[in-house]
Amino acid sequence: MSSHFTPPFSPTEWVMVDWGTSSLRGALLNARGEVLQERAFAQGILTVPAGGFAAVFAQRFGDWMAEPHRRCLISGMAGSRQGWQEAPYCPCPAGFAELGQHLLWLETGRIALVPGLSCITADALNTPDVMRGEEVQIYGALQLARRDNATLVLPGTHSKWVQVHNGRVTQFSTLMTGEIYALLSQHSILAKTLDLNGAFDPDVFLQGIKHSQQAGSLLHRLFAVRTLGLFDRLPAAALPSYLSGLLIGEELRSQAISNEAGPVILIGSATLTLRYTLALQHLNIASQSWGAEATWAGLFALASSGLTSFGLTPHLF
Amino acid sequence: MSSHFTPPFSPTEWVMVDWGTSSLRGALLNARGEVLQERAFAQGILTVPAGGFAAVFAQRFGDWMAEPHRRCLISGMAGSRQGWQEAPYCPCPAGFAELGQHLLWLETGRIALVPGLSCITADALNTPDVMRGEEVQIYGALQLARRDNATLVLPGTHSKWVQVHNGRVTQFSTLMTGEIYALLSQHSILAKTLDLNGAFDPDVFLQGIKHSQQAGSLLHRLFAVRTLGLFDRLPAAALPSYLSGLLIGEELRSQAISNEAGPVILIGSATLTLRYTLALQHLNIASQSWGAEATWAGLFALASSGLTSFGLTPHLF
Repeated sequence: MSSHFTPPFSPTEWVMVDWGTSSLRGALLNARGEVLQERAFAQGILTVPAGGFAAVFAQRFGDWMAEPHRRCLISGMAGSRQGWQEAPYCPCPAGFAELGQHLLWLETGRIALVPGLSCITADALNTPDVMRGEEVQIYGALQLARRDNATLVLPGTHSKWVQVHNGRVTQFSTLMTGEIYALLSQHSILAKTLDLNGAFDPDVFLQGIKHSQQAGSLLHRLFAVRTLGLFDRLPAAALPSYLSGLLIGEELRSQAISNEAGPVILIGSATLTLRYTLALQHLNIASQSWGAEATWAGLFALASSGLTSFGLTPHLF
Repeated sequence: MSSHFTPPFSPTEWVMVDWGTSSLRGALLNARGEVLQERAFAQGILTVPAGGFAAVFAQRFGDWMAEPHRRCLISGMAGSRQGWQEAPYCPCPAGFAELGQHLLWLETGRIALVPGLSCITADALNTPDVMRGEEVQIYGALQLARRDNATLVLPGTHSKWVQVHNGRVTQFSTLMTGEIYALLSQHSILAKTLDLNGAFDPDVFLQGIKHSQQAGSLLHRLFAVRTLGLFDRLPAAALPSYLSGLLIGEELRSQAISNEAGPVILIGSATLTLRYTLALQHLNIASQSWGAEATWAGLFALASSGLTSFGLTPHLF
């Protein structure tokens, strides 16, 4: 722990890094937050041996950090227990200010790990929920959309549904949608009948969405992917779209969504946000989408905010 | 197709075979339905090359079939498209009589494949549902329990919930509970935190059952297996019991169960039926359990019934 080390002294440029479970991405930003260069590597934290994070960082971004005035913020799983160093979760409700106060500066004094967020689910067990990396994308998308209140969805392996009020994340919920999709389509009995090379079929996807809104359990509806194939009701190439509709529809079914707080903000790849856009349209819910730019915007907003509100003592500036 | 070949001519003994996806079991029964010998092999249909079923059968049961008066009934996936020969599904509602009429006699005239059952789910898509092998266990358990009306549950990779009225299966529903449990506990992010060597913990299992009855989606509740471990709320060895409770509880949540039709009949291994017994007790639902004996009882009842009601022309007897 070394949060008393040198803080970012009005750097003119920033090295921003998003270091997740399966990927490592970086961007060099100028003082106005514009992306000068970008890099991506298949070096997620799972590929880094214990104690090897500084070396991988130096290998990939050492040249960018050669300028002594540059500082670096790293978001994502690099701040987890299995990462470079553990940056404890920042409890919700949390905005920029709280996140900035929980930054973990590494001993070099020039690199800080952004903590994830935690919240307590309002169920009988007070189950905790967590995110790492998404919080930066959330604040970035809010900046880009000029919004202070929103429902946000970050689809993926572990989808996040997020409530933001007055610029602070008040509550969120993780759904294992993407991981279940991958497991079922690659390793389950469904994998035997579905053709993963089939192009996305929006009509079949929406059939899956409709089916998912009916009574009963997901555990049963999933079996329809097998029987609809077995009885030649859907071609093998369309079954992945149907499965995707069933799973994304299950997400939507379990969330209280309305148009009252403005369009739902979707953050993710174009492939995924298109599916959520279609599904939400089917439920008459408006949405708007953001991609990778949200990450850099969020990290830059955090850095900018940090110069005045990181909670660092003034004499350090 | 050769249903016009020699039918079972009052055999005094039966070779009964349950040939599933991953296992091959057989029993030699006397004329009163008593099991004289049993055999089991890890030779499910997935291990049998195309065209190789007769050879495997001869290798494993040729000695039992050496007595020319013996006949054989085979239930399970051996009657599927990937099996020995396809015995088309018998549509519900179906009882012994309908099943007997759909037996598929192989060319030897001494071996018949028992068809599976199909039904139409009452959803907007009229999704079909299917079973192969369970139908025999269902009729067997009804015989053993001396029941004509019941809700039955056959837990497993693909759990079946079955409604029987006046001795006929009227409706059933497949839930991918066991397969999802295996995928999550072996291949998902949850596999990293849970210890599969932990002994079954009934208290933690019931916590999972309780959690599963709350609002929201299974896709979210599953993530609690990770966070409860991450926050040291449950030890790694207890997490498999929790996951099991969440999934079995999701099954129960989606079914209309009451004590009106008498105790729920559970058919399966002692390990699995114990869990359902506990879960149902928690919901104040009575149950009774049957094991492998239901298979032989069902095949024998079908064979006995078949002598008078197989729909075969009398002169063939």
